[in-house]
Amino acid sequence: MKISMDVFKENRNRLCDRLSNNPEVPRGAIVLLQGGESETRYCSDHEPLFRQESYFHWLFGVEEPDFYGAIEVDSRKTILFPPKLPDSYAVWMGRLLSAEDFRHRYDVDEVYFADSIKDILTGRTPSVLLTLYGKNTDSGKYSKEAVFPGIGSFNLNNTILHPEISECRVFKSDKELEILRYVNKISSDAHKANLTYFACSAFSIFKNYCQFMGGMRAMSYTCICARHEEGSMIVITPFIKVVMVLKTGNNSMELQEFVTSNGKFTPEQRQVYQAVYDASRAVLAACRAGVSWMDMHKLAEKVELEALKTMGLVQGNVDAMMEARLGAVFMPHGLGHFMGIDTHDVGGYPEVTERPTEAGLRSLRTVRILQPRMVITVEPGLYFIDTLLDAALQNPVQSQFLVREVIDRFRGVGGVRIEDDIVVNEEGIELLTCVPRTVEEIEKVMADAKKSHGSLPQFTSKQ
Amino acid sequence: MKISMDVFKENRNRLCDRLSNNPEVPRGAIVLLQGGESETRYCSDHEPLFRQESYFHWLFGVEEPDFYGAIEVDSRKTILFPPKLPDSYAVWMGRLLSAEDFRHRYDVDEVYFADSIKDILTGRTPSVLLTLYGKNTDSGKYSKEAVFPGIGSFNLNNTILHPEISECRVFKSDKELEILRYVNKISSDAHKANLTYFACSAFSIFKNYCQFMGGMRAMSYTCICARHEEGSMIVITPFIKVVMVLKTGNNSMELQEFVTSNGKFTPEQRQVYQAVYDASRAVLAACRAGVSWMDMHKLAEKVELEALKTMGLVQGNVDAMMEARLGAVFMPHGLGHFMGIDTHDVGGYPEVTERPTEAGLRSLRTVRILQPRMVITVEPGLYFIDTLLDAALQNPVQSQFLVREVIDRFRGVGGVRIEDDIVVNEEGIELLTCVPRTVEEIEKVMADAKKSHGSLPQFTSKQ
Repeated sequence: MKISMDVFKENRNRLCDRLSNNPEVPRGAIVLLQGGESETRYCSDHEPLFRQESYFHWLFGVEEPDFYGAIEVDSRKTILFPPKLPDSYAVWMGRLLSAEDFRHRYDVDEVYFADSIKDILTGRTPSVLLTLYGKNTDSGKYSKEAVFPGIGSFNLNNTILHPEISECRVFKSDKELEILRYVNKISSDAHKANLTYFACSAFSIFKNYCQFMGGMRAMSYTCICARHEEGSMIVITPFIKVVMVLKTGNNSMELQEFVTSNGKFTPEQRQVYQAVYDASRAVLAACRAGVSWMDMHKLAEKVELEALKTMGLVQGNVDAMMEARLGAVFMPHGLGHFMGIDTHDVGGYPEVTERPTEAGLRSLRTVRILQPRMVITVEPGLYFIDTLLDAALQNPVQSQFLVREVIDRFRGVGGVRIEDDIVVNEEGIELLTCVPRTVEEIEKVMADAKKSHGSLPQFTSKQ
Repeated sequence: MKISMDVFKENRNRLCDRLSNNPEVPRGAIVLLQGGESETRYCSDHEPLFRQESYFHWLFGVEEPDFYGAIEVDSRKTILFPPKLPDSYAVWMGRLLSAEDFRHRYDVDEVYFADSIKDILTGRTPSVLLTLYGKNTDSGKYSKEAVFPGIGSFNLNNTILHPEISECRVFKSDKELEILRYVNKISSDAHKANLTYFACSAFSIFKNYCQFMGGMRAMSYTCICARHEEGSMIVITPFIKVVMVLKTGNNSMELQEFVTSNGKFTPEQRQVYQAVYDASRAVLAACRAGVSWMDMHKLAEKVELEALKTMGLVQGNVDAMMEARLGAVFMPHGLGHFMGIDTHDVGGYPEVTERPTEAGLRSLRTVRILQPRMVITVEPGLYFIDTLLDAALQNPVQSQFLVREVIDRFRGVGGVRIEDDIVVNEEGIELLTCVPRTVEEIEKVMADAKKSHGSLPQFTSKQ
């Protein structure tokens, strides 16, 4: 899939539309961003594969480091400032690209090398330079504001741009949706391709499939292989997820998955899986524009608690359990997150929105009302985590609902998470993920593989 | 391949041996390093796959971020200080490892969490803390010295450690050589596995092979796909290398390679390839302990100039060409570099050594006398780079040797580089790389692939 520069031109227009309607933005304003910078690993000369900063990528589509980009809000005229490389680099890189080459490659109005940025911008006599500074609500970190020698001579504003551009990124254009559909198709197919492989061999095959078939050189996040216990045998296949030994916290869970090594669910695994599957399908059926994401989270919790009641792990009134936040004991994370250039895409909490404080709900990466063109993951989970179960059994309000003997039987069964990626529209959703999902579908794929391989392939390589 | 912690224990002992023999090191000294720190990509919460800082890895084998490590030089007692994680992380990561768990995992004498580092070290009453600070001669960057709150109350020395540990890393132990043999075997096999694929599909297959068959999750450097011209058709297979459009400078050349798309060399390509092959084999035959690396570089230049003379590109006396540094016009890089944890491993220029200033020679990453247990790449190359040829044609001394008409015919043929990795020993070398090398071997592999595929597979995916 070749990505047209029109994607980014349209994004710039969408941003300028918003800025033009913002009474705080005077005429003559210029948006100024600095792209990601080249770096080496520690003190060595190893240069990791460059990944562009996401806001810069969203606006300009530039793939190389050390650029600046500017947009005149009134005229929408776009200027790129690539780094001026020494002539001697031509020995190693071939002919160095000219300003005109870059103008053509990125389809912008003007290009000047970065060593002239002060002079060029001065010549445009901007009323204000709008720079990017604001907090990422998933990481708590702040975006790096553009700087260049002499920037102090301009009138600067770093508060207007961040919320406007973040809001733009929440709503996907038709062109962006095409890209996300493609990405989902390839990664769904990659899941299918490695369904019958175990552990990190699966990760290797997954990466290879995405690059070989989809041309994707980099993954948006590092695959995580889950294990039942640190150091124990890894049992893993796609489509069913465990949260057991997560190395990097909760930002990379989408790929951990498990199934028994013989290709069949145990009765307990089947019950747990079915509960999560039912929760995910209830949410998919209910999602549409106008619906509250927090309500969707609670819907998933409720379906799971009802299943747990049928399974005998909890007892009593489900609404009362909800009141006691029992759902968060079994699903301690939020239902999903915005998707886009970043795994956890921006815009979950615009500045006016407050985070919930209750257990489970405070983990939500957004509590917004769903609107058309939002792309979000639906990923309910169900886990039996000692730390949380033990605390709940000692909590006088929560413990009255818990049936200790049955719960103890499920410790060690493993957790399950099912993720689907969706686009919200007025009437409902478009489901982007397309993989075997039901217990029957998964067991059939495993059985077919067994038939053709003789047995399920196993590899002992570590990582 | 499972890497034993004995590798690192032996490295610590080797370092302590050197430090104990250094009259500048008083009794009671403690070595203190800080490992790599966890990070996220820009302001997002995406955590890239962690890679340990190389010196820290060499001493302790620790795979997680945010550690400190200390070694009492006299007793060789080793202490690790892992980060103290909040108890709540157990929900996401499973049971958090205890100090005893880490002690067992890394086979060290003592483990305390990093929040107690000042107290623990104070209790040892070190005469001096030896911290790591020094320049990497490939990147020009300095290693990051260890810091922690309260370090100012210790007697510190940051000049002794860096040259000593760098020198240790130049000479590989038996255990390290075993690892390098394994790495070379897997990557040689991966080259063979993807010989018949083109461009970045080959990269994908290469990565997959290394991970799937070899358990290698990360590559030491980013694969580079070379093109004849920016944007033109990529023609590439392993074992033959071009330097045409290198994105990241000269630190990642080992994988760029080319051959004609029909699986056969053109007459010109064959001549160029054969010249480089002859140079590489002359060097391999000459290498042994006691030989000067600069002499090896000149030997490669000389063999190539003689071939160019036979091919009619240059004329006159080859020794006079050498004097005029004509070799650097056709091979502008150094003959090779130390290998180890880093692609360009440390120790090329100990502090007493001066860099050469002459063309070509100044690009050498080391000019040391070869000694047993050094591991180094032998990678002569031959290129026809407009920038360099045009300058040489205008240089009165160099131009007298150049035959313009023949040279012009070779512009665009593409360059070739052949890399082999070797271990130096007293009598000669151990060759670690094992792939088809001669023109005949390569054409045979291509022909066999054609037979089994019907035609050579081609893929159009970009990156």
